[in-house]
Amino acid sequence: MSFYDKLKFTSDGLIPAIVQDAGTGRVLMMAWMNRASLEKTIETKKTHFWSRSRQKFWMKGESSGHVQHVKDIAFDCDGDTLLIQVEQEGAACHEGYRSCFFRSVNEGIQFRVTENQLVDPNSVYGQKS
Amino acid sequence: MSFYDKLKFTSDGLIPAIVQDAGTGRVLMMAWMNRASLEKTIETKKTHFWSRSRQKFWMKGESSGHVQHVKDIAFDCDGDTLLIQVEQEGAACHEGYRSCFFRSVNEGIQFRVTENQLVDPNSVYGQKS
Repeated sequence: MSFYDKLKFTSDGLIPAIVQDAGTGRVLMMAWMNRASLEKTIETKKTHFWSRSRQKFWMKGESSGHVQHVKDIAFDCDGDTLLIQVEQEGAACHEGYRSCFFRSVNEGIQFRVTENQLVDPNSVYGQKS
Repeated sequence: MSFYDKLKFTSDGLIPAIVQDAGTGRVLMMAWMNRASLEKTIETKKTHFWSRSRQKFWMKGESSGHVQHVKDIAFDCDGDTLLIQVEQEGAACHEGYRSCFFRSVNEGIQFRVTENQLVDPNSVYGQKS
């Protein structure tokens, strides 16, 4: 049986994919895949997603060069979430941080930035006009 | 500024929460929270969620005893995903595994179970009729 038969996509044809650094265990980001982007991810061993806001197929790193090399793909008991182990080139976050989860709350509801930027996003993605 | 101001809930009032073992870095599960379950999670330091299938507020461990003690809550650059560090009692997965991500694909699209069950789910949740 193929694992596609175990997966449940939303009514929009999407499934959330958690991306984890295979070496450090750090959770880097969460993004959505459709079946085409999952197939492309398996075929190329580079992560591909579906952007809900831009309604667009995209490869992680296509503009930044910060590609994710896929080492493993796991799926959960309900078949409605993927967990992808990667080797991350550069910064996973478009704001220049290694992980998109660079802010956290540990007491109450105040938050703090918990890491330094690796790169200046403007140097990677270009200045916003 | 409260971190609630940074969060974006879906049109259904939900936000996905990735739950990670604070000690091992293992990703245990992904589930959905509404604002009330997030507030209860912060207040009690035990994870609470919203079940989309049962349309019900629930605490992790309420029937199994497999409670998650919250150590930290991070949120991503877009404010639309939470990453919660926990100490997990027992098995996170209702199928008796430590993590819900107990199956993975590493070559092609065939999958395999990658870990042993910690507990028999029938002994924890009762026999299904």
